[in-house]
Amino acid sequence: MSEVVLWDYPKSSASYRVRIALNLAGIPYRKETVDLLGKAHLSDAHLARNPQGFVPVLDIDGHRFTQSLAILDYLDTTRDLGLLPRDPAERARQTALAHAIAVDLHPVCNLSVAGFATKGEEPARTNWMRHFITQRMASFEQMLGAFDQAPYCCGQTPSLADVVLVPQMYNAARWGADIAQCTRLNSVAKACTEHPAFAAAHPDA
Amino acid sequence: MSEVVLWDYPKSSASYRVRIALNLAGIPYRKETVDLLGKAHLSDAHLARNPQGFVPVLDIDGHRFTQSLAILDYLDTTRDLGLLPRDPAERARQTALAHAIAVDLHPVCNLSVAGFATKGEEPARTNWMRHFITQRMASFEQMLGAFDQAPYCCGQTPSLADVVLVPQMYNAARWGADIAQCTRLNSVAKACTEHPAFAAAHPDA
Repeated sequence: MSEVVLWDYPKSSASYRVRIALNLAGIPYRKETVDLLGKAHLSDAHLARNPQGFVPVLDIDGHRFTQSLAILDYLDTTRDLGLLPRDPAERARQTALAHAIAVDLHPVCNLSVAGFATKGEEPARTNWMRHFITQRMASFEQMLGAFDQAPYCCGQTPSLADVVLVPQMYNAARWGADIAQCTRLNSVAKACTEHPAFAAAHPDA
Repeated sequence: MSEVVLWDYPKSSASYRVRIALNLAGIPYRKETVDLLGKAHLSDAHLARNPQGFVPVLDIDGHRFTQSLAILDYLDTTRDLGLLPRDPAERARQTALAHAIAVDLHPVCNLSVAGFATKGEEPARTNWMRHFITQRMASFEQMLGAFDQAPYCCGQTPSLADVVLVPQMYNAARWGADIAQCTRLNSVAKACTEHPAFAAAHPDA
């Protein structure tokens, strides 16, 4: 296998997801940090990697991929991670659960979106984050009620929902969003924290 | 097959996607309109269908599904629509293209998000829509350069990217976002307009 390179930013939720999946797959990789604060993601070099100017970008198996959910699907398929079940109906249910965070929450709390909404001013920016994180994590919590947390979102092994939940838990803490009453997702997050693939992917690791 | 029911709103991009896919599959279905303006999506009856309070919700094959991308994956898998190729790498590339709209643009221009950002006031709300639509459609346009529009986004048959592009073109026109310079996506949209599955799914159809 050719060297695996992840263009990464430690606090990026989308990058954090890919780090978790690479760890679950046991794939060694080299991290290249793209300094978002220094606007390195808008450099010509990074835009040549990804016209969207986002992280993550992953080089693997001779390919270059962008978009974390597409990358997770690739790793799940080619490395048999079991992130989603093969039965189409159960797969759709678990995908819908994961998308309640990955599609309906994460992009809305992207720093460029929150910054545009609030002109980057505080406390408006923090209020923006807290509003959407608490509202949409509450929906996720309710959706979790249709699954068996044993101990992960959908059963005994980590699924796509766990991979997107954990980075969002980090964000909730970062912005001080109160999700203490969401007992199911807090229980899942605790189980994930104890999993080495998740622990090694943490922004502070 | 049990009766197929789509809880729908004509102008909802996410519902529009599912209408296109149902038409591509040749599946007859009954539409139940959820009056978003009348806040019917926040009724107990609709929240029982979908805790997120969103449309679409689809009843099919004895299952109830939410989240348009999960539904599209289910229909693609069970009805062999060819929305995504089977090769994992090509699948990841085409998924990433589609997600540039479905993940990075659509949720940010959800009416509840744009309304929260602008307190529902004009011209701020229209400016919000135009800002993100023009910026992110331009990224999509650039990403299209890596595919062969012949005549659809990724080749001779409609793909996931086409299914998410067309409803976003409708939004661009609705909000007066100027994407005239995006020649590739305008060419694709024209081809899709002439496809009966797309035409029959249009909000005005």
